[in-house]
Amino acid sequence: MGTFAVRVKRIQEIMKSQGTDYLVLAPSSQMFYLTGLKTTADERFQGFLVPAEGTPILVLPKMYQEAAMHLAEKNFDLLTWGDGLDPVSLLLPVINKECRRVAIDERMWAGHFLALRTAFPDCAFFGASVLMGQVRVIKDAAEMALLEQAGARADQVMGEVMKELRPGLAEKEVAFFIESRLRAYGAEDLSFKPIVASGANGASPHHHTGDRKLSAGDLVILDFGGVFQGYCSDITRTFCLGKPSEEIKRVYRAVQEANEAGFAAAREGTACEKVDQAARDVIARAGYGPYFIHRTGHGIGLDCHEDPYLVSGNEEKLARGMTFSIEPGIYLPGQFGVRIEDIAGISPAGPVRFNHFSRELIEV
Amino acid sequence: MGTFAVRVKRIQEIMKSQGTDYLVLAPSSQMFYLTGLKTTADERFQGFLVPAEGTPILVLPKMYQEAAMHLAEKNFDLLTWGDGLDPVSLLLPVINKECRRVAIDERMWAGHFLALRTAFPDCAFFGASVLMGQVRVIKDAAEMALLEQAGARADQVMGEVMKELRPGLAEKEVAFFIESRLRAYGAEDLSFKPIVASGANGASPHHHTGDRKLSAGDLVILDFGGVFQGYCSDITRTFCLGKPSEEIKRVYRAVQEANEAGFAAAREGTACEKVDQAARDVIARAGYGPYFIHRTGHGIGLDCHEDPYLVSGNEEKLARGMTFSIEPGIYLPGQFGVRIEDIAGISPAGPVRFNHFSRELIEV
Repeated sequence: MGTFAVRVKRIQEIMKSQGTDYLVLAPSSQMFYLTGLKTTADERFQGFLVPAEGTPILVLPKMYQEAAMHLAEKNFDLLTWGDGLDPVSLLLPVINKECRRVAIDERMWAGHFLALRTAFPDCAFFGASVLMGQVRVIKDAAEMALLEQAGARADQVMGEVMKELRPGLAEKEVAFFIESRLRAYGAEDLSFKPIVASGANGASPHHHTGDRKLSAGDLVILDFGGVFQGYCSDITRTFCLGKPSEEIKRVYRAVQEANEAGFAAAREGTACEKVDQAARDVIARAGYGPYFIHRTGHGIGLDCHEDPYLVSGNEEKLARGMTFSIEPGIYLPGQFGVRIEDIAGISPAGPVRFNHFSRELIEV
Repeated sequence: MGTFAVRVKRIQEIMKSQGTDYLVLAPSSQMFYLTGLKTTADERFQGFLVPAEGTPILVLPKMYQEAAMHLAEKNFDLLTWGDGLDPVSLLLPVINKECRRVAIDERMWAGHFLALRTAFPDCAFFGASVLMGQVRVIKDAAEMALLEQAGARADQVMGEVMKELRPGLAEKEVAFFIESRLRAYGAEDLSFKPIVASGANGASPHHHTGDRKLSAGDLVILDFGGVFQGYCSDITRTFCLGKPSEEIKRVYRAVQEANEAGFAAAREGTACEKVDQAARDVIARAGYGPYFIHRTGHGIGLDCHEDPYLVSGNEEKLARGMTFSIEPGIYLPGQFGVRIEDIAGISPAGPVRFNHFSRELIEV
């Protein structure tokens, strides 16, 4: 039995035990995980329908037929439709009428979901990740190795971009350099658009990288990742263009210690929220509690953000095979921000980091 | 009144006339069109809620607060939420309980939509693009100018990449070159991942660009576009590496004539499906009807695919200010494919093309 057939079988076992009748996936890492098919979502409906028992159905626009024919494993019946037809009507005759509970890919476009509902009258819908997550959250050895390789490449790029930083360079020039280097190392995609947040822009954790030019004295946050063989990397470092002020050093030290505290807490059996708390406590003790305005981390794998989330309220326990970011930060509006992020995981030998670039404050 | 306030007002007028109580947008070109805010969708809920009357509400994770504060126009009340909280619960007290009909951004993640439904009990949902499209489908002069500029840059890149094509180069190397050049011309994003489909890969219209190396005698389809100041370009040309066979010439000529026929048919007042038919008839007469397996075109603007769609069954009439692709193709499985695509629009002076790169068969 091939990798994908095995994964579908495990999902179907959970579906049966939970009374879920169908799982419907959109083009996403979920679909890739169960089929190996990598397409992009658009206004044409594409879906992978897994019944609790029996052969899945892959619904594709006719134009994707060739791509589907070249998949290594064909663990599905293929239904294709041409432009001008209604793809959902194709499903009506093949959907089991007894169907009651349907898990939906959270990343399916709402427009497709609205249309799809007619094929599943009287059904209750819920997000598929509670189902898929149970299988995906535990990485096998091959997946751990791919995440480690992806992390090593991100580290290399961080070293190269650090050398390029200088006053006068625009944030988006730095971002383009990062992207070029990730591609040069073989990234088939970006985990997300590189974040280059300089000076006061650093106070916005997901700053939209723009035209601002780096300036002497700036703190510069670099947060990026590439996708290698399907698996994401994600790293953040904060550099200082010149001499740091005493306040910068104080803030940086708090974030660095919070990162260490988070990693130290991330042990098999520890609840996710405890890891968040460990990092948060350090920052609160340093007096910056209100300025750490996001969770400590997110799981990572085929998606850059996936289970488990290291966030207050998440009592899920860390287990062997889980992989996640640890990324505390402090954001002082109008001034600057600091964030330090590594990917870590629970390997059979214990917790490991997949990023090894220095976490010290570096002046460039 | 600012650009965004004017747009919201026009949308609210349509909502009132149609009895739509709320419009809920996700991070997308729809949200950008009404707010100027460009964020990326992820598992954290972001929404722009427009009531039929009154001030819109922008719901953002706290980490996006800074970005929202820097918008040129603040035509909304801002509601932010921190990690660990339930953003939808924030909406419960502010949503009008009489609400019955809600338009939903088709690109909202289904996961967010599932959660959002609890804030709108007993409501009927429908896709927002029928509403937004009425305003967005007609581009004003500034938008037309941006599309023209975006097209000119795509033309330039096509010329540069043409010169690089040679046997031995991998498809993905060509794609990376395309991306680099688009970025160098200032593209803030790609309209979509460049498609480089060589040899038999050309028979798959949305071929996933890969490791195949270009080889002497190949037809190579290049389909790409960049986003410039929010507006998309999209162009396709098919080149021949060396001397084309007689069959290649025949197929190419049919596609080229179909492209011309499509453009000739694209006049103010003509139904979209008639443009599709005009292009399709040429290909059918040449004997390749079954191998033109997609619609003739799609609208383009802030989204690379938007209304109007040039497809069988779409009786919508072309109007001044509409902009769209014309992209017939022929795909011979196992052999090769040909596609020729320009962006065109209905300007006050009549139909215009926004791409001017040669549509002749070029041997490289």
